[in-house]
Amino acid sequence: MTDTTKNISKKAGLPPGVLMHVGKRLADNVRISVIDYNATDYIEKTCKTPEEVFEYRDTKNVTWINIDGLHDVDTIAKIGEYFDLHPLLLEDVLNTKHRPKLEEYDNCLFITLKALNVDEENNDINSEQMSFVLGPNWIISFQEREGDIFDGLRQRIKEKGTIRQKSVDYLLYRLIDTVVDYYFLITEFVSDATIDLEERVFEEPDDDALKEIHLLKKRLANLRKITGPLREAVLGLYKGGNKLIKQSTERYLQDVYEHLIQVNETVEGQRDTVASIMDLYMTGVSNRMNQVMQVLTIIATIFIPLTFIAGIYGMNFDNMPELHWKYGYFIVWGIMSVVTLFMIFYFRRKKWL
Amino acid sequence: MTDTTKNISKKAGLPPGVLMHVGKRLADNVRISVIDYNATDYIEKTCKTPEEVFEYRDTKNVTWINIDGLHDVDTIAKIGEYFDLHPLLLEDVLNTKHRPKLEEYDNCLFITLKALNVDEENNDINSEQMSFVLGPNWIISFQEREGDIFDGLRQRIKEKGTIRQKSVDYLLYRLIDTVVDYYFLITEFVSDATIDLEERVFEEPDDDALKEIHLLKKRLANLRKITGPLREAVLGLYKGGNKLIKQSTERYLQDVYEHLIQVNETVEGQRDTVASIMDLYMTGVSNRMNQVMQVLTIIATIFIPLTFIAGIYGMNFDNMPELHWKYGYFIVWGIMSVVTLFMIFYFRRKKWL
Amino acid sequence: MTDTTKNISKKAGLPPGVLMHVGKRLADNVRISVIDYNATDYIEKTCKTPEEVFEYRDTKNVTWINIDGLHDVDTIAKIGEYFDLHPLLLEDVLNTKHRPKLEEYDNCLFITLKALNVDEENNDINSEQMSFVLGPNWIISFQEREGDIFDGLRQRIKEKGTIRQKSVDYLLYRLIDTVVDYYFLITEFVSDATIDLEERVFEEPDDDALKEIHLLKKRLANLRKITGPLREAVLGLYKGGNKLIKQSTERYLQDVYEHLIQVNETVEGQRDTVASIMDLYMTGVSNRMNQVMQVLTIIATIFIPLTFIAGIYGMNFDNMPELHWKYGYFIVWGIMSVVTLFMIFYFRRKKWL
Amino acid sequence: MTDTTKNISKKAGLPPGVLMHVGKRLADNVRISVIDYNATDYIEKTCKTPEEVFEYRDTKNVTWINIDGLHDVDTIAKIGEYFDLHPLLLEDVLNTKHRPKLEEYDNCLFITLKALNVDEENNDINSEQMSFVLGPNWIISFQEREGDIFDGLRQRIKEKGTIRQKSVDYLLYRLIDTVVDYYFLITEFVSDATIDLEERVFEEPDDDALKEIHLLKKRLANLRKITGPLREAVLGLYKGGNKLIKQSTERYLQDVYEHLIQVNETVEGQRDTVASIMDLYMTGVSNRMNQVMQVLTIIATIFIPLTFIAGIYGMNFDNMPELHWKYGYFIVWGIMSVVTLFMIFYFRRKKWL
Amino acid sequence: MTDTTKNISKKAGLPPGVLMHVGKRLADNVRISVIDYNATDYIEKTCKTPEEVFEYRDTKNVTWINIDGLHDVDTIAKIGEYFDLHPLLLEDVLNTKHRPKLEEYDNCLFITLKALNVDEENNDINSEQMSFVLGPNWIISFQEREGDIFDGLRQRIKEKGTIRQKSVDYLLYRLIDTVVDYYFLITEFVSDATIDLEERVFEEPDDDALKEIHLLKKRLANLRKITGPLREAVLGLYKGGNKLIKQSTERYLQDVYEHLIQVNETVEGQRDTVASIMDLYMTGVSNRMNQVMQVLTIIATIFIPLTFIAGIYGMNFDNMPELHWKYGYFIVWGIMSVVTLFMIFYFRRKKWL
Repeated sequence: MTDTTKNISKKAGLPPGVLMHVGKRLADNVRISVIDYNATDYIEKTCKTPEEVFEYRDTKNVTWINIDGLHDVDTIAKIGEYFDLHPLLLEDVLNTKHRPKLEEYDNCLFITLKALNVDEENNDINSEQMSFVLGPNWIISFQEREGDIFDGLRQRIKEKGTIRQKSVDYLLYRLIDTVVDYYFLITEFVSDATIDLEERVFEEPDDDALKEIHLLKKRLANLRKITGPLREAVLGLYKGGNKLIKQSTERYLQDVYEHLIQVNETVEGQRDTVASIMDLYMTGVSNRMNQVMQVLTIIATIFIPLTFIAGIYGMNFDNMPELHWKYGYFIVWGIMSVVTLFMIFYFRRKKWL
Repeated sequence: MTDTTKNISKKAGLPPGVLMHVGKRLADNVRISVIDYNATDYIEKTCKTPEEVFEYRDTKNVTWINIDGLHDVDTIAKIGEYFDLHPLLLEDVLNTKHRPKLEEYDNCLFITLKALNVDEENNDINSEQMSFVLGPNWIISFQEREGDIFDGLRQRIKEKGTIRQKSVDYLLYRLIDTVVDYYFLITEFVSDATIDLEERVFEEPDDDALKEIHLLKKRLANLRKITGPLREAVLGLYKGGNKLIKQSTERYLQDVYEHLIQVNETVEGQRDTVASIMDLYMTGVSNRMNQVMQVLTIIATIFIPLTFIAGIYGMNFDNMPELHWKYGYFIVWGIMSVVTLFMIFYFRRKKWL
Repeated sequence: MTDTTKNISKKAGLPPGVLMHVGKRLADNVRISVIDYNATDYIEKTCKTPEEVFEYRDTKNVTWINIDGLHDVDTIAKIGEYFDLHPLLLEDVLNTKHRPKLEEYDNCLFITLKALNVDEENNDINSEQMSFVLGPNWIISFQEREGDIFDGLRQRIKEKGTIRQKSVDYLLYRLIDTVVDYYFLITEFVSDATIDLEERVFEEPDDDALKEIHLLKKRLANLRKITGPLREAVLGLYKGGNKLIKQSTERYLQDVYEHLIQVNETVEGQRDTVASIMDLYMTGVSNRMNQVMQVLTIIATIFIPLTFIAGIYGMNFDNMPELHWKYGYFIVWGIMSVVTLFMIFYFRRKKWL
Repeated sequence: MTDTTKNISKKAGLPPGVLMHVGKRLADNVRISVIDYNATDYIEKTCKTPEEVFEYRDTKNVTWINIDGLHDVDTIAKIGEYFDLHPLLLEDVLNTKHRPKLEEYDNCLFITLKALNVDEENNDINSEQMSFVLGPNWIISFQEREGDIFDGLRQRIKEKGTIRQKSVDYLLYRLIDTVVDYYFLITEFVSDATIDLEERVFEEPDDDALKEIHLLKKRLANLRKITGPLREAVLGLYKGGNKLIKQSTERYLQDVYEHLIQVNETVEGQRDTVASIMDLYMTGVSNRMNQVMQVLTIIATIFIPLTFIAGIYGMNFDNMPELHWKYGYFIVWGIMSVVTLFMIFYFRRKKWL
Repeated sequence: MTDTTKNISKKAGLPPGVLMHVGKRLADNVRISVIDYNATDYIEKTCKTPEEVFEYRDTKNVTWINIDGLHDVDTIAKIGEYFDLHPLLLEDVLNTKHRPKLEEYDNCLFITLKALNVDEENNDINSEQMSFVLGPNWIISFQEREGDIFDGLRQRIKEKGTIRQKSVDYLLYRLIDTVVDYYFLITEFVSDATIDLEERVFEEPDDDALKEIHLLKKRLANLRKITGPLREAVLGLYKGGNKLIKQSTERYLQDVYEHLIQVNETVEGQRDTVASIMDLYMTGVSNRMNQVMQVLTIIATIFIPLTFIAGIYGMNFDNMPELHWKYGYFIVWGIMSVVTLFMIFYFRRKKWL
């Protein structure tokens, strides 16, 4: 029973309001940072206590509060209380096993999703739970670890990109868009792995290839579980008619939605390809067995009759006329040659040779 | 024909009003208990006769009547009559083979579901039919056996948890939520079994692994049959707009609904994984056969030609010049060595050695 | 070309009004019986001519006219004419190959379905086409053969069961409910067959098991074809809002609908299980082949090298020093023992022994 | 590249109004015939030029214009112009590769479908494109070849069948119904083929059986492609609320729709069965290989050790005490018998003998 | 990591407005051409700078602006700005990996799709991204390379085809229709490949056939990904009720929609066929192994017993009476013949010979 299971099992039967972090601790310390901007002004700040954040709630600027690390339940509870977040919302933020979803609350929109990244060192995919809460003019983003995927976005805000002209829902769009852009990298990563695997299975279908097929299958199933619900969530975001999303932003969200459809189709296509590679693998194994059998059969069917002939003239009967023929031995060699040639001819016709 | 079948067969053609217990008897005695509470007061009582329960129907408090054991049809009929429950409702309560469902009656809401629990002793999953009837300010819960999964909830009511502030539909939510929390434990249990199986099949695909794959498949099919309809039932509960469910509770029920979606997705994912493990198993078996064949082929193809050569010079022809050569025997050994080396080289090139 | 085909082929191109019996003749004579009742009165009668039935059409009582045997087209045509039944309706009654369906006519409701029964003698399932026509206060039921599945229901009407208080649509519900109750027996029958098969395939996957898997598959496909459309028909019956169905009866029909869902789910589950058993079978066959191969390989790889050694010293070269060593023979035995032991050790390591 | 392809390739990029016959020419000459009738009058005529048909367009009778042979584009264009048919409609009439469909135009209804017929000589299924255009009181039917499937219908019109009382939409129903009735013959034909194949695969799974499985699969896929879209078209016909279809005819069209559902279900069922037969075939092949292996293994494992023993005493060592024992030879025979009996006992226990 | 990946990876996190070409550069230079026509006038022009195009935007004629080559982002940006195209629209035009889609903007309709063409030299399928933007009286088409598939259409416009009478939405229809007509050529191309493959797999299931099956599978998956979304886009075009599409054009678009359905059905049918061919391949491999095994078994089971008999009489026991029988040798030959005949009879009965 893993650590996670223990947490889940502790949670069973608890009331919904009791907050508990489900998942591994990925960050050392909780890090709270605030960016507060409008077209002209820009403030960036790192906060030591959650209370430092409170003053930004009611400014007219766009405020982006980012929290890295989910293990410090108290901090999150304090922020939740001040921003009047529903207990179920906080529970979902803390549960890093949660599937992506969108939920509308009276005073805010809540979206939780998985950010993916290629871990080039381990040739693996890193997955991280992220949650965004969109209020009237603030966003709170929760991340499991200190990440850098939003660094480019922060820079752009600082440098007075178009985003500085736009309202807070556009910031939400940019956050989700950034996450989805990384999904394309993941599909390329998996795509490359599939092509490698394909060649390898054609060349030599060994046990490692089988393990890799299985791994790839599980990865793709996982990707589907991550991107499918997010697609539905983004659909709800731009079709839901929520008043926190301006009409001008809907077109952008639709674009994200279409990207997610494309990611999903790629994943489905890869799944088909991997299934097809598994078929190739099994056929490769069969073909190899066939080859082994053919070698055995050719050798055996040529030599078994010859050995029989040799055995005949190895018998010790008193009366075996052939033994005393002058050219008996050579005649036997002749017969053996004929048999062999016939066999070779037969195998050639069967295309085994 | 099992006991169940007999009951089912007895039921065929009977009118709908005739009550009959379908299933095994899991509890020794029927046990009726009542909890009656509001924000300030709290009464807990175990009743010997169903009539003792009647007085609580019309109190203004929240009343939770729990009945353990379904085999005593009379008791249940009496309660059904007093609380004005439809005969079909009682029939469904007694039929422990019933699939999870929600049904709205004029005066109550009826939900039946399966509670699951890991039986750690037998490494198995226990399943129990449970039914909840929600009235204006009472809930009647029916269980097959005396259970403990609601003990934590009872304790919390006693200790003046938030639940004491809430109405009876919130209690229904908490009951269903508790059952669903246990589903997560079951999915973890099955998940662990899948991972174990996966490793085992990679290492040694034997007959026991095959049996376990089959068992796991059936377990997952069963889980799907249990959680799928419940998901639909909970959806009906929070979307149905029934006046017995307050709006404030709907958000909580939606949370349960999402948990059930997550459980379902996990189950579907496991099904895919088990199907993939079955493929691994079959490939493992093929690979093993391949290996056996290779060993046979290597041994046979090396020694059959050698044996043939030995057979040649075991013949008894009068005129066999080689036999009389001084180094004939050693030359033969030489030829044999060459043949052997050639074969070994050939197998190396084919990567069979 | 079977008898049925011939009938179908005769029908091709005929106008819709021409009645023709499609199917085998299962009853010797057409038997018409009438039950006419209300809360107080009860009449039961067997009629020799269809005309005897006519008087009951316009009584205020509930009238149940039952016709066993569908081959006498004239009788059915006469009844059809008097009760003003649409030609297409009569055509469907006579076509015993028809899939279950519900059809609403201006003056009546028509439902056709398959009644199933376990034929314990032949270990088989009997299927019979049944049709019910519901009018304002009468039901006409058509059966292929004289059946007994409604005997219990007739008895209950006679004995003043609750049914005597109810209107004619409740009688329709009871007829359908009786048929559906028998479906549960069929699913149990098939379930038992599946469990038997499962064990058998684990123990000895022989040719008969394969035939049984195939038979079971076809049976389940058939069950699905029978119960699926009926489920839709019953849904139409209680959701259709037809004025011949009273609101109080709808709840009961919903119950039948849910039973049909459960039957369907069981059938689908069984189909999955049978597919899984087929996998087991194929794996069993592979495993057995593996075992055969291992035996062959062990024997061959041990003895082929030994035979080679023996062959060496059976050669007749003049100059073979070993032959003249005093303990040559025993040394050869020693070498052979070493080779054998090595082989046994090798096979043990490979877990083939 | 076939003839058809060439035509298709010529069409690519052409404007929609340019008519071109796509498909093989199946009739020698275009044959135009007219039947014009009401309850009392009846005219039948074969026309040499399309212009002869024009006078019947505006009679008050029901007019059925039948055109056999689609290769004469001019004739069809002339009729199309006079009856004011849309260019796209004519294009679809001429494209014999078109899938079945219904299309509503302002002044007419257009339905195109495939008529099927068993070709008993070649044990094959003939397919022919047919199109019907329904106007206010006329129908134009287009056939690829002079057919006889409507001969019965023509006879019935001539003989004052009920059809003479009905309007032109009822004639359309009868045309479609006739085509669909033939589908039942086709499903019976395929059904018989499936049953034959099933038995054959159980008895002897040879290469021809494999080819037939493949052929049957393709046939069923084809049938599905033909009947599925037609079902949707007929649904559109009776549910579409088009004013050319009278309400009294809708009931009849619904009947055709249900026949098509039944045909479709049969086809789907057959597909499942054929898939299952393919499984049987593959299992049969495996079983046969198993049997071959067993024979080889039994023979080899019995005789290889015996041959080894014989080889031992064929060695020429000077000092081999057993050779000089009086009963050595007979003792060896004894040992051999014991080994053989042990092997036979072992194989019996394994159930290989 | 391919070039494409690099571009995708550069895009991750960029704001939506930044244009970047994703894909390979297929054309040397960007080529802009304008056709401006009405029923009487016709102008054709090749432009060197995007500015030359601007004057045609506000003419009352139909204007078709065609741009070959997507790598010159500046040119496209300029045109986009003048025609007031949304930044997301331009982004989609430049992303040649985009799936087909329809998007409605306030001032225009945007459709992107893949044009396919058979590359007869390489026996391959060429795919090219195309985008059409439909404004009030202009169309801008974007192509990856200078293409000729619209040459016929241009000619027809020049030659005063019916298209000259129609409005700009009809031109859009003709563009899409031309693309879809080429899809039929592709399905024929793939169909032919499937038929070839089928025959080949029946004759000789070798490794190349396997590779071709895999290639065909991927091609069909690709076709499905291209034609499926386009079908939906065209459906949106004629059902969307956009004011840029006239009602008279909707009928034509519906025709295109049906062609796409037919293409899709063909692709799905081919997928089924290829899956079936894969089954044939695997069965072919199994059958071949079976044949190999039979040859081995026949040879081995005939000769192994004979060799044993010869071995017996090759033993050197002093006391072996048979050796001294006058006809011993011939008797042995007799026994051997009997054994052989028996074996041959046995194999014949088993139908192995």
